[in-house]
Amino acid sequence: MTPTDHWAAVAQRLGTDLFLDLQPDPTLSAHGRGAQLRRSLTTELRAAISDGRLPAGTQLPPYRSLAADLGVARGTVSAAYAELIAEGWLTARQGSGTVVAHTSTPSVLPNTRRKPDGPTHDFSLGAPTPSLFPRSDWIAATRVAITDAPHSAFGPGDPQGNYELREELSRYLARVRGVRTSPDNIVLTTSVHSALVSLCSNAVDGALAVEAFNMPFHRASIEAAGTPTLPIPIDRDGADVDTLSDGAYSDARAVLLTPSHQFPTGVALSPGRRAAVVAHARSRGMYIVEDDYDGELRYDREPIGALQGLAPDCVIYTGSVSKSLSPAVRTAWLVVPDAVVEPLVAAKGPREPDASIVDQLVLTQLIRTGAYDRHIRRSRQFYRKRRDHLVARLRDVGVDTGGVSAGLHIVLPCRPDAEDELLATAWRAGFLVFGLSQFRHPTAPPDGRGGIVVGFGSPPDSSFNADIDALAGLLAAFT
Amino acid sequence: MTPTDHWAAVAQRLGTDLFLDLQPDPTLSAHGRGAQLRRSLTTELRAAISDGRLPAGTQLPPYRSLAADLGVARGTVSAAYAELIAEGWLTARQGSGTVVAHTSTPSVLPNTRRKPDGPTHDFSLGAPTPSLFPRSDWIAATRVAITDAPHSAFGPGDPQGNYELREELSRYLARVRGVRTSPDNIVLTTSVHSALVSLCSNAVDGALAVEAFNMPFHRASIEAAGTPTLPIPIDRDGADVDTLSDGAYSDARAVLLTPSHQFPTGVALSPGRRAAVVAHARSRGMYIVEDDYDGELRYDREPIGALQGLAPDCVIYTGSVSKSLSPAVRTAWLVVPDAVVEPLVAAKGPREPDASIVDQLVLTQLIRTGAYDRHIRRSRQFYRKRRDHLVARLRDVGVDTGGVSAGLHIVLPCRPDAEDELLATAWRAGFLVFGLSQFRHPTAPPDGRGGIVVGFGSPPDSSFNADIDALAGLLAAFT
Repeated sequence: MTPTDHWAAVAQRLGTDLFLDLQPDPTLSAHGRGAQLRRSLTTELRAAISDGRLPAGTQLPPYRSLAADLGVARGTVSAAYAELIAEGWLTARQGSGTVVAHTSTPSVLPNTRRKPDGPTHDFSLGAPTPSLFPRSDWIAATRVAITDAPHSAFGPGDPQGNYELREELSRYLARVRGVRTSPDNIVLTTSVHSALVSLCSNAVDGALAVEAFNMPFHRASIEAAGTPTLPIPIDRDGADVDTLSDGAYSDARAVLLTPSHQFPTGVALSPGRRAAVVAHARSRGMYIVEDDYDGELRYDREPIGALQGLAPDCVIYTGSVSKSLSPAVRTAWLVVPDAVVEPLVAAKGPREPDASIVDQLVLTQLIRTGAYDRHIRRSRQFYRKRRDHLVARLRDVGVDTGGVSAGLHIVLPCRPDAEDELLATAWRAGFLVFGLSQFRHPTAPPDGRGGIVVGFGSPPDSSFNADIDALAGLLAAFT
Repeated sequence: MTPTDHWAAVAQRLGTDLFLDLQPDPTLSAHGRGAQLRRSLTTELRAAISDGRLPAGTQLPPYRSLAADLGVARGTVSAAYAELIAEGWLTARQGSGTVVAHTSTPSVLPNTRRKPDGPTHDFSLGAPTPSLFPRSDWIAATRVAITDAPHSAFGPGDPQGNYELREELSRYLARVRGVRTSPDNIVLTTSVHSALVSLCSNAVDGALAVEAFNMPFHRASIEAAGTPTLPIPIDRDGADVDTLSDGAYSDARAVLLTPSHQFPTGVALSPGRRAAVVAHARSRGMYIVEDDYDGELRYDREPIGALQGLAPDCVIYTGSVSKSLSPAVRTAWLVVPDAVVEPLVAAKGPREPDASIVDQLVLTQLIRTGAYDRHIRRSRQFYRKRRDHLVARLRDVGVDTGGVSAGLHIVLPCRPDAEDELLATAWRAGFLVFGLSQFRHPTAPPDGRGGIVVGFGSPPDSSFNADIDALAGLLAAFT
């Protein structure tokens, strides 16, 4: 059987007309072929679910038998399933196997298991361009930091995180983002994702109000950890925080906001609303959780200072180096009022700093020497150019863009009823882009928005121009 | 007021006769003084709870007012409270403040917030000697790994962990521990602690049987995540796994064991019981979770191969570099049967490899070049010498040791009714050692064991001989 025959057999098992090109590239290593097959399988299953060929509730074959049918390693199929489960397309329950999920808005997010050697135009969100990583700076900082560290640095670490890094961060965040804090109020962890889950599990005793558009996999993890989320509407001034006074939000003990650059719509929270949400939080004893996910990446204006600077008593601030440096360095921070330090640190256990202390030594050195600042400045110039090129090229084909003054993504608005078809066409053509509705909270009412969300940090430098041309071509054909 | 006066005021508040020397070392920096005060406060509160001066249920003053009384930063007191909460001495509940916990066996564990500049004789458990960290090897491996990595290594990473490290580990664990697996069956994470919590949350749907003596902070986290634990007795042949057939264990869906070197008693699971527990697990569809926490550190005999090698279908194997290299490198692994890969990876979310990918690149290089093996050989020689010196010195003063052929700790048996007093004396004299009963499962019946558990990896090289002499002196005075 050729791979295509294999796939036909599988499609028959699934009772659908899936088509998958499983002809592997003969120049690839065994691992490379496995990765390629996994990618193809994931892409095709995603498209088939999205366009209805695999309706909700369809039972998928056990991955062992699918792997046997396809003649690929079981790990290849199980990894593809795992990825689609994590994205929300599939659901796995003990005993009942893997089925297509009952959801109209699966939380598609960057396919991190995909290798970059494929044909896809990768417009994933939230990751910096990997070629920007300051390798020489990292190596030089490692040499100094590892040489100079006291022996104790290699013993059990402080669960709150390396003290010297917290010192550097308290100064850096004050200087760059207007955050007012001290090293004792910073808790280090691996990612904003784990920071939010820990906060909700240990310091928020009730529901969490969230923006109607948000990061679906953060929301899913927060809810899985037992904290219900309540959406608040978004308009041109950002989250409509006045609605927090409604009875519907009476269970909310905290509100999660992206005040500087709403994710993903791109608007900023207006000054009036910044003041209003602080007043509301103070009067109700609520916390505001500020996810400052791309606060350093501003191109056309001075950055808006962090909301935390207005109200360190009730704002919990979080950020990471995932966009400024690399998601491969798993280091993030929470800046919290006094009362929140204890429960967060205690929850980690007496000897579990989770994030790598070795990396924290290196980061301390990078910030201390100014190498981190220089890297941010270089990145800002690089992304400004990319943004300008993307906006100009899209304008050439008559496509307007929104929310473009910051960060690593833009939104291309479209009619809500056109979004699904545009997205299915894009995925089928090998574009990794996202639909705005995929970021809408499941209980948020429709608000007349539709759009495509495009990350412009992800394409590698070698293909950026071609990727943008291809995207412009796709959109031109569609309008 | 002098610091001692301050403390007298606090003792009065607490209605007890606590005494604390709060005279800070004038040569220390402000941060150093804070650390010293925090350490003193923690030590004194621990001793006061342990010897009954602060009985269970005693309400502690709010940390803000205690800090004001003592004239120290609020962070100093909150950190001390957090540490004692994590260790199980104190309990914090929203609204009701901080109270002394109702437990006779608080889970004292290494005080990781303590700085090494203090007077304590540090016999913490589970950490390698920090001065052994192979700094030059780490720097050299960083230079090669960061230079040679593809750009994609600095993009979003595989939640399962870096593939190349999983490849190296599958070969390394086969060679050194007899583990039979493939890279697709390895899931990387930050620590054995987080590995166990994730396993119980995502792959064990019922209770977990555990050894009657075990790591209390692992057990506490597993239970906090919703998995009840059921103790099985320990004897000279290790865990008495035949008891798993009792009706009392009918809810157990997995059993957590330390087969190669029972923690902390030091016995090995007998060959007959290794076979029996595998047969039991297969017949009941249970998993065996093998915590191979110090598998590489053997001094007098060939290491016993991992149980996993006998039964890769039903054994979940876990380990980390925390003892072989440093707990500052937050990298651990789970080796799991096929069916467990999906739920573990899916639970992380689509783009969250938790453990640092940058460190994984460096570790891959360390293993690949043989530097890791050389480091293990050096460490084994180093610890063998320490162990020999400790055993000889204790024999000089008439103290027998148990379970000494492996790892980084020894048990000094004593009468169970003498343990509490010995421990209180040791703590008061500045020794960080542990009582065997602190590792006993809360529902395990007394079994006539008592003892002191001493970690011999923790003392710094500069004070090792003096620390051992002091310990021998303490024990000689007591017997």
